[in-house]
Amino acid sequence: MSPDLTSSPFLAACRGEVASRVPVWFMRQAGRSLPEYKAIRGDGSILDAIADADLSTEITLQPVRRYGVDAAILFSDIVVPAWAVGFGIDVVPGIGPMAENPFRSRADLARLRPMDPDADTPFVLQTVRNLVADLEVPLIGFAGAPFTVASYLIEGRPSKNYANTKAMMHSDPQLFADLLENLADLAIVSLRSQIEAGASAMQLFDSWAGALSPAEYATHVLPWSQKVMEGVADLNVPRIHFGVDTGELLPLMSTAGVEVMGVDWRVPLDEARRRIGPGFAVQGNLDPARVFAGWDVAETGTREVLAANGGQPGHIFNLGHGVWPELDPEVLTKVVELVHTEGKTSPDA
Amino acid sequence: MSPDLTSSPFLAACRGEVASRVPVWFMRQAGRSLPEYKAIRGDGSILDAIADADLSTEITLQPVRRYGVDAAILFSDIVVPAWAVGFGIDVVPGIGPMAENPFRSRADLARLRPMDPDADTPFVLQTVRNLVADLEVPLIGFAGAPFTVASYLIEGRPSKNYANTKAMMHSDPQLFADLLENLADLAIVSLRSQIEAGASAMQLFDSWAGALSPAEYATHVLPWSQKVMEGVADLNVPRIHFGVDTGELLPLMSTAGVEVMGVDWRVPLDEARRRIGPGFAVQGNLDPARVFAGWDVAETGTREVLAANGGQPGHIFNLGHGVWPELDPEVLTKVVELVHTEGKTSPDA
Repeated sequence: MSPDLTSSPFLAACRGEVASRVPVWFMRQAGRSLPEYKAIRGDGSILDAIADADLSTEITLQPVRRYGVDAAILFSDIVVPAWAVGFGIDVVPGIGPMAENPFRSRADLARLRPMDPDADTPFVLQTVRNLVADLEVPLIGFAGAPFTVASYLIEGRPSKNYANTKAMMHSDPQLFADLLENLADLAIVSLRSQIEAGASAMQLFDSWAGALSPAEYATHVLPWSQKVMEGVADLNVPRIHFGVDTGELLPLMSTAGVEVMGVDWRVPLDEARRRIGPGFAVQGNLDPARVFAGWDVAETGTREVLAANGGQPGHIFNLGHGVWPELDPEVLTKVVELVHTEGKTSPDA
Repeated sequence: MSPDLTSSPFLAACRGEVASRVPVWFMRQAGRSLPEYKAIRGDGSILDAIADADLSTEITLQPVRRYGVDAAILFSDIVVPAWAVGFGIDVVPGIGPMAENPFRSRADLARLRPMDPDADTPFVLQTVRNLVADLEVPLIGFAGAPFTVASYLIEGRPSKNYANTKAMMHSDPQLFADLLENLADLAIVSLRSQIEAGASAMQLFDSWAGALSPAEYATHVLPWSQKVMEGVADLNVPRIHFGVDTGELLPLMSTAGVEVMGVDWRVPLDEARRRIGPGFAVQGNLDPARVFAGWDVAETGTREVLAANGGQPGHIFNLGHGVWPELDPEVLTKVVELVHTEGKTSPDA
């Protein structure tokens, strides 16, 4: 039987409560840099691994065992729903999501039919069920936010400048809105299925929203992120929201309907709290580059992050972006140990 | 004889004065997207073109003729000083600056000997002299800021995450400081030689500083940008400072000793002015993606930039980043026309 996780440090921190310790997990902790991951992952698309529930379960568990982190995050990918309904997108090793026929016109909306999780992503649900039976820490489910998923569908490959995405946003805002509406529905269905299968929290990744100006974000993006958050509100799990390079957008993103605001490494946590106001937990924000530089540099950086939070309740320690493939797992292990021994929160902070 | 440019719209705006029109130029206007540039540029490294003063003169003049912009910017590259003193760096077409042997240890400092502009970059000085004889608008000289040039020398190629640069910054701060000191000296010598040859203004590009946290920037980067600005202060030309993704850093960067602060498209100009305080001109900040999307979208974006500035004196219109190779010159021409007809500043704004 699964343990009662309600009072776990991770979920307590999500609620803004003083936790028994500062909880820590790492975006992209599952996969990427772990030798035990490389040993079982094989070549080929990450989507093949995601479609294998036993393999995905093991990959999700590996970092929990190794690091002793306070939460697991499902091994999956933000393009899974679009892929599962047959849009025509793959994740190419060494490159990233690629669509041979990018989304370019109204006719392409038909390539995004509604998703039936039991029929379209049974492996995801099986992975979640496997995990909640095994885990003694909360499982975080996730989805890509409509804008970030749209950027992959429109560009057809990872982009530096989102040229076609922004062009559609401005020159055919109705088509852009209809696409994001569709992707919001997919995200809602996917997140609901993960939570109903047992995930204790969720994160909405708007990884590339930071390429937009605040005005663009407010008009063309935020309403659909809000729709996603509202679409899962009745399930009462903490909702985490994150993107890189979002210093300008934090005040807006935090209105999407979130309990936890993720922060990249550019904005110190005390400044992030000023921008979003009271009532939120914050998640972050050690620069992965500090981990790349080795333990001494990572140690100083970890202490700086804890100091910037200043002991305030509602801090989930994380990196300020996903784990890089070249990061040393030994250094990440020491980061977890340091956060667990030195991290303290207090209602008086 | 060269015209007296003191009262030109560009230099008046740099001084924060009401100009006869809002001046406009585009970062990377020389080269890149122009068909007349592609016709004369040839293949091979951009450094070969820069070493040819007649060719560089023509490439610098092309956008001034075509667009009717209010300033010319020297056709050159931020790695020219390091290249000219024999560090061992090239600019590879389609990739960018590459160093076969990146900067990795104290011994590499010897690869950055002092620069003698007359002997090391005579073609740059000749290009500047050619230009000031021909131009009826001010010429902007430029250099790369010590941090951004260092990132190319340390990484050895364009980087997404500046892993090695940040690692050196934190694990050997003295070596990192010595490198930036060296690069500051090169930038000062290069800028002084351009200004003494006739450039009317200068821009220091710290293109990638936005990858840093404010604390990292303040400790490890700002002192050397300040050194550069101080090193040219007695020449009394306007000093422009710019980097992308620098919303968090604007308050710090503006203390480097600058008259004009460049702003990327993520931060509206009114908000940028709030962050840096009074006494500065601002430069920017139309998202190049708005130009990519065609004239209708570019027109709206241009009007938004003018509106965000709100008619305040001291506005130099520009893009929020350099011209992309795929931008349509016809759209940029219309942007210039619109800024010239619609842009107004007033002392009462």
